[in-house]
Amino acid sequence: MLMSMLFCYGAYSQDYEAKIKELGIELFKHDPPVANYVRAVQTGNLVFLAGHGPRKADGSYVTGKVGKDLSIEEGYQAARLVAIALLSSLKEEIGDLNKVKRIVKVKGMVNCPPDFTDQPKIINGCSDLLVDIFGENGKHARAAVGMGSLPINIAVEIEMVVELKDN
Amino acid sequence: MLMSMLFCYGAYSQDYEAKIKELGIELFKHDPPVANYVRAVQTGNLVFLAGHGPRKADGSYVTGKVGKDLSIEEGYQAARLVAIALLSSLKEEIGDLNKVKRIVKVKGMVNCPPDFTDQPKIINGCSDLLVDIFGENGKHARAAVGMGSLPINIAVEIEMVVELKDN
Amino acid sequence: MLMSMLFCYGAYSQDYEAKIKELGIELFKHDPPVANYVRAVQTGNLVFLAGHGPRKADGSYVTGKVGKDLSIEEGYQAARLVAIALLSSLKEEIGDLNKVKRIVKVKGMVNCPPDFTDQPKIINGCSDLLVDIFGENGKHARAAVGMGSLPINIAVEIEMVVELKDN
Repeated sequence: MLMSMLFCYGAYSQDYEAKIKELGIELFKHDPPVANYVRAVQTGNLVFLAGHGPRKADGSYVTGKVGKDLSIEEGYQAARLVAIALLSSLKEEIGDLNKVKRIVKVKGMVNCPPDFTDQPKIINGCSDLLVDIFGENGKHARAAVGMGSLPINIAVEIEMVVELKDN
Repeated sequence: MLMSMLFCYGAYSQDYEAKIKELGIELFKHDPPVANYVRAVQTGNLVFLAGHGPRKADGSYVTGKVGKDLSIEEGYQAARLVAIALLSSLKEEIGDLNKVKRIVKVKGMVNCPPDFTDQPKIINGCSDLLVDIFGENGKHARAAVGMGSLPINIAVEIEMVVELKDN
Repeated sequence: MLMSMLFCYGAYSQDYEAKIKELGIELFKHDPPVANYVRAVQTGNLVFLAGHGPRKADGSYVTGKVGKDLSIEEGYQAARLVAIALLSSLKEEIGDLNKVKRIVKVKGMVNCPPDFTDQPKIINGCSDLLVDIFGENGKHARAAVGMGSLPINIAVEIEMVVELKDN
């Protein structure tokens, strides 16, 4: 009985959908891509996610170069928005975020001038949210790098690889 | 009988090798790499392709920064050449492009100045050709980003991940 | 008997741990990451490695832009240090480098000015060491690109995907 309760508790602690609600995060439905690509492709139990940008609630994007037009804190918040956009696409692809086994890889690309060197502080905005939601299973292999430029001058673009549970 | 014909038609519509010929595209044989790397590695039913550049029919490459030395249309055509180079390497690796199940991921990197923001319009040159050939199975998760610089100043470099059919 | 000896020799020639010692390379134990990420994640028989930098024996990093602050030879040596850092993380993740079946993918990112075009010569520092250690199994699909900027101004950052033997 006790074991059963513990087991249930363990299961509940991995209710990522509930955790997202608890954090007050609203996932959204993306507009269809305007070109010949998609936002996510599943192959085996891996999902490869397209590069996503920092979409605001009104559908516009956070733009500008971090370290020039945007502060580190603004860049961090932009990366957090990218995480929400990525999870929105992931949910649209797999239906239920409780299917996630592990966040495998995050590639964080910061739009910044050549002398900017704080890319990790920006991409933390994505990593922190992933770990807030998925706990240890949200810890990912990461790269944080500085780009010369990004589409429509978005501040951050992030790609992600996710492993799903077997079923 | 009708179902059988429909089935055959369905099968024919996925004859990617025929489609490539129909589009007048000539795949080519790359020179061996000059350093300690290869152009494609298969692991399980995934093929990871190296970063490829826009190789012209004469073996030289399209060079220059898009948005400065090259127009958007020239960049688009360069990305289309990269797609042909990628498919040439893929065919060399797997022997028959009809083995392709899905184009999983395309990472498009545009050589451009810091104020260039039309990377997606460039990488469309690759995405459009992939969908012309592979149809829905050619739609991939994509990232389109701006690089500070690329090898021998090539205009575009693209990496790709491809899923093969089980057999 | 002879075949058996040849087989044994073949097996020995793939003792990557011995090869690393023979080359005089010392792998090291990384400090724990300071943010919400990890240096390697295994999914199935693939290991995705985080972006790593050129860590020197004293724990500091090789910094500066290649082609401006650093020569090509210095950049090459920096990329070699990144390979050692990647293998250190890989060993920490999988315990024994003899489990490696194939180096699948290397993404080499060089911190350099917009007019630098010799990224491959830099990333060769990583590729050459991988092939010195793993032989043909060390030959990987590769991309070598120029970044506008990198964290704490490191000269090179490299990500890697590795396939492990079944067991």
